[in-house]
Amino acid sequence: MTKFDEATQAIRVDDTTYDVCLDDGYSIGGPLNGGYLMAAMLHAVVDASPHAHPVSTSAQFLRVARPGPARVLLEPLKTGRTAAMTRARLVQDDAPFIEMLVTTATLDGEAAPDWADGPSAVMPDLADCVRLPDPKPESNMNFSAQMELAFDPPTIGWLTGAPTGRPESRAYFRLAEPQDPDPYVLALAVDALPPVVFSAGARGWAPTVELTWHLRALPAPGWLTLIGGGRLISDGWFDEEVEVWDSAGRLVAQSRQIARLGRG
Amino acid sequence: MTKFDEATQAIRVDDTTYDVCLDDGYSIGGPLNGGYLMAAMLHAVVDASPHAHPVSTSAQFLRVARPGPARVLLEPLKTGRTAAMTRARLVQDDAPFIEMLVTTATLDGEAAPDWADGPSAVMPDLADCVRLPDPKPESNMNFSAQMELAFDPPTIGWLTGAPTGRPESRAYFRLAEPQDPDPYVLALAVDALPPVVFSAGARGWAPTVELTWHLRALPAPGWLTLIGGGRLISDGWFDEEVEVWDSAGRLVAQSRQIARLGRG
Repeated sequence: MTKFDEATQAIRVDDTTYDVCLDDGYSIGGPLNGGYLMAAMLHAVVDASPHAHPVSTSAQFLRVARPGPARVLLEPLKTGRTAAMTRARLVQDDAPFIEMLVTTATLDGEAAPDWADGPSAVMPDLADCVRLPDPKPESNMNFSAQMELAFDPPTIGWLTGAPTGRPESRAYFRLAEPQDPDPYVLALAVDALPPVVFSAGARGWAPTVELTWHLRALPAPGWLTLIGGGRLISDGWFDEEVEVWDSAGRLVAQSRQIARLGRG
Repeated sequence: MTKFDEATQAIRVDDTTYDVCLDDGYSIGGPLNGGYLMAAMLHAVVDASPHAHPVSTSAQFLRVARPGPARVLLEPLKTGRTAAMTRARLVQDDAPFIEMLVTTATLDGEAAPDWADGPSAVMPDLADCVRLPDPKPESNMNFSAQMELAFDPPTIGWLTGAPTGRPESRAYFRLAEPQDPDPYVLALAVDALPPVVFSAGARGWAPTVELTWHLRALPAPGWLTLIGGGRLISDGWFDEEVEVWDSAGRLVAQSRQIARLGRG
């Protein structure tokens, strides 16, 4: 079992209750990454579902979750032949931290698309992409060590005082340990980029309020490509869209989150 | 009170219970339109919130709702100074029909954007757009009478056997009765276009599984512009994104839904 599978496993207590142990390895300076938390919750949802894949996930982030034991409470809402719908809640010390609506179904790994658009941006070759410097140990940015991100250089120009001036963030992504991407890795991937607003000149912790992502196909082994953008920064709010493409050139996930601008 | 306001009003029973009367005027051949149902539920959510606007709404469509009395059951999840979060459920005959997660906040009607992208497609002038023919009375497409939609002609080419070959649907939109757009009208607008997959050659009832939309600004009076597209049609599933622009040229709402292809 890989570290990621272990850190996101959900242990069945009964039909609607699962235990998870939230791992400090996915903290971003203290709070845990939202994509990591979604992955753990989705393990519980799919385990309790007659279907194999989390096709649609909407998560509302109520409070910042911390490492340690937590529970996932499920409420089955509908079980159909094609899809099942479940409400899931992440609870720590009896308080809700994330509320989630999930639709599970079983995707056909061999399906050829009826119609497919291409990526919304062209990436340079992997060899021409750049890594972020390792975070300082005291920053508690443990999350960074779990994955490799190789960035399209202009989209991390903000690091050296040269933001592009528009919300964007693009990188190749894979786990640091040898593990092929699966739907749970995709849950991590859609929330793994630095906030797109950094490229537009913003700074600071940008808390996600709501994130919805859809699993569109089962990812092929190899690097994923994350293409992040946004349409509007206004009144303290911004949207962030992330497309995830697999090594076979297929759109495997698409997300949009709405978040608050940091006060950094 | 306009017909739309009346048809979407939510009558307070207690802190967490509201009565609504679902109006046959918003049926699409029997089932009620999803945007209409969201508008009615959002009236309940906002009435019970300390904040004025439904900034983020995720809705999971469990079952097809029919005209008649229904209830909206609320669960407050978090009440903060900037935003409040609520779970809402539409119930008929004790069964859940729609499950929804809503974030309310109070938007500043005068806010100037920090950064704004333009529309993702250019619309022809209103005078060059075309209406759909009136539906046959026996079709029970009452929904069509509630609004005016003036379409970008190629995007309804499917009506006359000439689909564009890609998922798209674009139109100017306003209510048939004199009513300026507000957040509830936007809830209707994001689900008012014919499915984008009709332009890609698909036919038949395309049930929405999940729809998330964000209110980005308070709309100015006048026509709205709806720009609908999609990225992938595969394995029986498709995504549909709708941008809503107001008469002042501002992005006021953005939605994405995941839906099933019809078997038409």
